[in-house]
Amino acid sequence: MDFFEKHLSSTLQAHVPYVPGKQPSLKEEVLKLNTNENPYPPSESVKNAIFEEIEKLRLYPNPQSLELRTCIAELHNLSQEQIIIGNGSDDILNLCMRCFSDHQLKAGMLDPSYSLYRSLASIQGSQILGVPFKDDDFDLPIREIIESNANIFFLTSPHAPSGKEFELSSLKQILNSYEGIMVLDEAYVDFAKENAVSLLNEFDNLIISRSLSKSYSLAGLRVGYAMSSPKIISILDQAREVYNLDRLAQVGAQAVLKDRKYFEFTKKEIIKTRDQFHQELISWGWRTIPSGTNFLFTQPVGKANERSASVAGNLFEFLLSNKILIRYFPENALTSSYVRISIGKASEISILIDKIKLWQDQEIRR
Amino acid sequence: MDFFEKHLSSTLQAHVPYVPGKQPSLKEEVLKLNTNENPYPPSESVKNAIFEEIEKLRLYPNPQSLELRTCIAELHNLSQEQIIIGNGSDDILNLCMRCFSDHQLKAGMLDPSYSLYRSLASIQGSQILGVPFKDDDFDLPIREIIESNANIFFLTSPHAPSGKEFELSSLKQILNSYEGIMVLDEAYVDFAKENAVSLLNEFDNLIISRSLSKSYSLAGLRVGYAMSSPKIISILDQAREVYNLDRLAQVGAQAVLKDRKYFEFTKKEIIKTRDQFHQELISWGWRTIPSGTNFLFTQPVGKANERSASVAGNLFEFLLSNKILIRYFPENALTSSYVRISIGKASEISILIDKIKLWQDQEIRR
Repeated sequence: MDFFEKHLSSTLQAHVPYVPGKQPSLKEEVLKLNTNENPYPPSESVKNAIFEEIEKLRLYPNPQSLELRTCIAELHNLSQEQIIIGNGSDDILNLCMRCFSDHQLKAGMLDPSYSLYRSLASIQGSQILGVPFKDDDFDLPIREIIESNANIFFLTSPHAPSGKEFELSSLKQILNSYEGIMVLDEAYVDFAKENAVSLLNEFDNLIISRSLSKSYSLAGLRVGYAMSSPKIISILDQAREVYNLDRLAQVGAQAVLKDRKYFEFTKKEIIKTRDQFHQELISWGWRTIPSGTNFLFTQPVGKANERSASVAGNLFEFLLSNKILIRYFPENALTSSYVRISIGKASEISILIDKIKLWQDQEIRR
Repeated sequence: MDFFEKHLSSTLQAHVPYVPGKQPSLKEEVLKLNTNENPYPPSESVKNAIFEEIEKLRLYPNPQSLELRTCIAELHNLSQEQIIIGNGSDDILNLCMRCFSDHQLKAGMLDPSYSLYRSLASIQGSQILGVPFKDDDFDLPIREIIESNANIFFLTSPHAPSGKEFELSSLKQILNSYEGIMVLDEAYVDFAKENAVSLLNEFDNLIISRSLSKSYSLAGLRVGYAMSSPKIISILDQAREVYNLDRLAQVGAQAVLKDRKYFEFTKKEIIKTRDQFHQELISWGWRTIPSGTNFLFTQPVGKANERSASVAGNLFEFLLSNKILIRYFPENALTSSYVRISIGKASEISILIDKIKLWQDQEIRR
């Protein structure tokens, strides 16, 4: 054992870090449809808010993000005590893992879903149980979640990477019987038909996690939040770093949250583009999961109607060489024949479609 | 046991969160000398850097903060592989605790010093050993640190809350014999005569933590960093949240780090004001620790030459009622008769001195 291994904490010894999607340098000219960013810039109001706040940067931020929490509470008709702010929703998910799992208290997740949960569990020394889907319809495995005996369960809703939107009634059915802490990771929910906020009144073991990275175009500013019962929020708050959100993020987030008109506009545009693109994919015979998110999960069809990991990988590489970034997930049998494509502007999806048609022509001639 | 206790992780059950100094709303008109912020705003160059970056907020930041790390590496004549960036240096300290301590691997700290270490240990389920000072000269307890058997030791250098600057030779003496991971928390070192960066070449178990909150006037932006051997940096990096630093913080930090002229100007002003104020306190007969930081730790003298927790508390309350915030630490016998005062602008310290003289008059008449 070398010096460093000898001194390493037991959980780090076996830790597998999370690997994010590629973030190219902005100098590279690429069409970036791989990490579900919003194709529209954030509300213009963010600029003034940040300009004004720059003057105060010598001073520590409000350690409780009080004004931002009030703003979010008002948006959802909740109280400030039901809101906690994170340095991105990854910070929120980490707090959940640290507070409600350890070497004895098991965590659970849908398998596949957001692979960060697994990384957060390993660094906490927690066992994480993956509850698999029956097939690539990605229907919610209700009974298996209830019977998982997980102390805390991370349920990505709508689901990623499939984009599938689960029924509110199914989530309620789980909450009626599941006995642990339930985290609904609603990072993409603004692009769905329903959300679970109304369930907070009924279930005080429910935590809903949200991100400003997708529907509010603030991936670069790192703001997420959770809504729950005051009791759970007070527990999460004990594990939070005191000054986890800087001044610019606190005011920038408030600015975009208050511009409801712009939020509705960009949301509608993205949903419209998504649904049109979905129709296009269907017309090609590509199996595509109905999406409640800002991405589509689709199964490319290769030569001789082949649908496989090889075909998906082939499309991925073709687009990459044409400077279009999408994502694919070869590590799981349910996802390996699919690719995930973030919804850009209509003009960008149009460019993508042209390139895919080129690929299709190549495939036929292969 | 109620529902929440039953589901709480073992470390959270006994966790004692960190309590920061008071951060008043900016609507209150107070003279804020309690959390060691810089009285000068950050370099003007921060504005342009942030203005330009706002345009890119829809996109995720660089997950490795590559440009910022290069900038810091150049500043210290190190390689990029020797630098890791934190969301404030608190993030760095947390990574150190998570990677190199657990329920079996003990952490160590000077007692008293930065109380956050204790909080980070408790949430990690680690035992933390406080190595006490012999007396309120705050001389470094060299032998006791070496013999502490701590797997990781947090050594605040210069020391807080005393402000004491330790000799580089003493630190080297410790590193020559101490067998664990050593974190030198150099949050205040820019106001000191020496720093320990040169020791990185000799000791690959050394981690030096820095903050941009004090000497670079960026407390509101949350940026800290650590320097160490490439091996230790790669370990810490595994525990880091992938997108821990937002876009504006990445470019804002680069801007202030590159403006060396302004950095030197504000640093010199603060040191000049500190040293003049020190002379004033000495002239009153107040015992004051020679400071290598941007604050002074001084023992107020009350009626009939009384020096006590009561006198210190009395001064604290008097200044508070006069809208001047300072800090005192009643929980430790070595600190309870002292107050800690952040160095403001000369004009602010002048206002403070006038108020203290009023308090002295009141004390005499008491």
